[in-house]
Amino acid sequence: MSYFDSASSAPLHPVARRALQASLDEGWADPARLYREGRRAALLLDAAREAAAEAVGCRADELVFTPSGTHAVHAGISGALSGRRRVGGHAVVSAVEHSSVLHAARAAADAGGSLTEVPVDRYGAVAPAAYGEALRADTALACLQSANHEVGTVQPVAEVAEVCRERGVPLLVDAAQSLGWGPVEGAWSLLAASAHKWGGPAGVGLLAVRKGVRYAVRGPADERESGRSPGFVNIPAVVAAVASLRAVRTEAEAEARRLSELVDLVRTRVPELVPDVEVVGDPVARLPHLVTFSCLYVDGEALLHELDRADFSVSSGSSCTSDTLTPSHVLRAMGVLSEGNVRVSLPCGTGRADVERFLAVLPGAVAAVRARLAAPAAASPGSPGSRAPAAAAAESPEPPEPAAAPGPTGELVVDALGRRCPIPVIELAKVFGRVPVGGTVAVLSDDEAARLDIPAWCGMRGQEYLGERPADRGVAYVVRRLS
Amino acid sequence: MSYFDSASSAPLHPVARRALQASLDEGWADPARLYREGRRAALLLDAAREAAAEAVGCRADELVFTPSGTHAVHAGISGALSGRRRVGGHAVVSAVEHSSVLHAARAAADAGGSLTEVPVDRYGAVAPAAYGEALRADTALACLQSANHEVGTVQPVAEVAEVCRERGVPLLVDAAQSLGWGPVEGAWSLLAASAHKWGGPAGVGLLAVRKGVRYAVRGPADERESGRSPGFVNIPAVVAAVASLRAVRTEAEAEARRLSELVDLVRTRVPELVPDVEVVGDPVARLPHLVTFSCLYVDGEALLHELDRADFSVSSGSSCTSDTLTPSHVLRAMGVLSEGNVRVSLPCGTGRADVERFLAVLPGAVAAVRARLAAPAAASPGSPGSRAPAAAAAESPEPPEPAAAPGPTGELVVDALGRRCPIPVIELAKVFGRVPVGGTVAVLSDDEAARLDIPAWCGMRGQEYLGERPADRGVAYVVRRLS
Repeated sequence: MSYFDSASSAPLHPVARRALQASLDEGWADPARLYREGRRAALLLDAAREAAAEAVGCRADELVFTPSGTHAVHAGISGALSGRRRVGGHAVVSAVEHSSVLHAARAAADAGGSLTEVPVDRYGAVAPAAYGEALRADTALACLQSANHEVGTVQPVAEVAEVCRERGVPLLVDAAQSLGWGPVEGAWSLLAASAHKWGGPAGVGLLAVRKGVRYAVRGPADERESGRSPGFVNIPAVVAAVASLRAVRTEAEAEARRLSELVDLVRTRVPELVPDVEVVGDPVARLPHLVTFSCLYVDGEALLHELDRADFSVSSGSSCTSDTLTPSHVLRAMGVLSEGNVRVSLPCGTGRADVERFLAVLPGAVAAVRARLAAPAAASPGSPGSRAPAAAAAESPEPPEPAAAPGPTGELVVDALGRRCPIPVIELAKVFGRVPVGGTVAVLSDDEAARLDIPAWCGMRGQEYLGERPADRGVAYVVRRLS
Repeated sequence: MSYFDSASSAPLHPVARRALQASLDEGWADPARLYREGRRAALLLDAAREAAAEAVGCRADELVFTPSGTHAVHAGISGALSGRRRVGGHAVVSAVEHSSVLHAARAAADAGGSLTEVPVDRYGAVAPAAYGEALRADTALACLQSANHEVGTVQPVAEVAEVCRERGVPLLVDAAQSLGWGPVEGAWSLLAASAHKWGGPAGVGLLAVRKGVRYAVRGPADERESGRSPGFVNIPAVVAAVASLRAVRTEAEAEARRLSELVDLVRTRVPELVPDVEVVGDPVARLPHLVTFSCLYVDGEALLHELDRADFSVSSGSSCTSDTLTPSHVLRAMGVLSEGNVRVSLPCGTGRADVERFLAVLPGAVAAVRARLAAPAAASPGSPGSRAPAAAAAESPEPPEPAAAPGPTGELVVDALGRRCPIPVIELAKVFGRVPVGGTVAVLSDDEAARLDIPAWCGMRGQEYLGERPADRGVAYVVRRLS
């Protein structure tokens, strides 16, 4: 098994496959019909709803199935905001929510509401007190993920739910990443999740809305799923989704312990094996199976290709792997290095040997990418003369010395305009040896990643980041050499 | 095979089942990812899109997959209205569209737009000229089904599309009932369909939007499916859906001929075998596999139960089978009898023996329901003394003579308040013998079905329906005895 991206989508669980096949013959009819095929379908759907509700920790009549986790999030946010529109149109979310939550909240804000994004610490966690400060008299809804999908940090959901309960604001929990590991504790009001994250088929999300929560359906009327999720329900997929949820829950405690050890191995070994790496996310309060790290002077997309060639499938929050050429909003909110970012999320059943092989492959993959970029060596900064190995340099001719000239104030100015991550940071590192101790260097860049990665580089190198200032083109990121 | 409700949902086609199972191992990953599992999933999705587009008759980049036909309709209507909001907010639909179309159009009208419902003739067909009259300068969208889902009548889509094209208004075609039989002809602009109607799995709809059609996505941003359908795509289900579409298309011509003969058999034999039946819908311009008829003096739900006990699964547009206790809007728009309504829609592969057994069972089933309701015999009206067979009457004691008294003008008044379909019509029939030729009778009823069924009874009995007038409670439906 070298697929290490279960946080994106997990392979179909064998139990899900069997349940799907077994219910294809029984679950295709309209469960609202009174004839036998309809009654059989309705029985399957009812039983799946009971089992899902038990796993979620709610009543069966509080839970509906949706066509995806995204639909559950969209419907939940829209329904809760509409249900409390007399209170106001303000929503509160964490800055590191899944894009489905952020997009739904922003769409509501654009339609006349307003939105507060609660910041996170360097581990990606929110502070319950910060939710308390963000809640207002016109707050209709707060949203918080149970655990972060990119860095694995577990959020203080129960504490935030309590803060919200005291203020009479419903809390919607996006439990997509954690529901397979266990129910979400605390007095949440709404909960959304997605079956393909726990080994169920795609096409099944679930939305729980506690009794007493004000909820009003937006959009065209549809009588199915209590009016909360339109469209004909894919009952075999629902049955398979719930069967796999029960199956992974049975294994969850033991598997969490086992995978958590493998993640600890990655967290410990990667910084030992690969120079200039930042492991991000909470080392303790985290998902059992997920770890994320970023590699200085590395192009994330190139690293993913190297790892793919070595049979490892991982994802990245680096800007080069994004359509918008911006680093992941999670890494940005955390203020951590974004270049060369790798997320490893282990599917259930991943063996120690797979992880060890990954650890064996990774250093060479990072080195190869750095070599192609002619990145500075891992030595301390200020030694721009050190270069990539000759073999790699032959593949890609050694680039010219960066264009760097003293500005009018004597400050060194590096022109990295038009260059994408990780080049601006590499160019900074290359010229840094020419900056006198106490002197400053300004990197001109129009790449969004520089805003994150130049301060991160300063932190890793013990240099002082002085901030940014506007420039004729792009932004000037200013660094003072301390040593 | 005694499942005769394929217009509601068709059993999974064997080809769909095989394609689903074959793609479960390849199609679970995120097709947007660059690693091998993602690339494999993307290849499957791309191939399915190409094949679906070919079957629809559009370009692959014009077609997206949605989680259901309902989602395709909702998205298509919302997107087309939003795309042309500068033109105006007026939409035109036929009065007999599927509820997903009507609900989406009404939701848009409630949100500040407006809506015109084009009437249909007694067969359920629209006139292209009526669309022409309904189009206005502020019309943003017109919608028309390819064929009606309740009575099978094929709509003049190509002609209506031409009318719309001349006026610069896009036409959205709901092709849910017909796409398995063949592509929709004509210059339509948008097309929606649903896989479980053609033997694909549930959970897959498709929406085609022709290049050049103004389209703007409403709701939260989501990058998948060209931004037109949010949520993680269920690729194995999509693959299965498209495989079964191709499979049923291969068989379509021969199967259409075969099933159409069976439907003709039903259309011819049912009125011969069962007294007082109205077969509805166009006898020629119709779907090959679908026929609907209504039985006077019959409770639709009771008839469905009788047929279910005899192993036949059919559906009904009678008010008693509806949550809202109103007859199907299709039957209402057509102005045909709604009581004792039965829709028979034959799945592919239905044999002649199955249909003959249905024809053998139906007369007894209808007679049993009529007997329990102590319905008048099938003889000409005016013979209220004739009664149901003694055996059935024993099950349910003979009800008292209806409360009927001459009103102040000498008009006979039947009080059927609080009685549900088909009782008001039965009570009318029972007292009709007491009305002198040329005299009138008024039926007081608060049942919505009476509005449809009393005029229909008049038509079937050759009596004159004079119309309705307000009453202290309910409505008075007035009939003049002609013979």
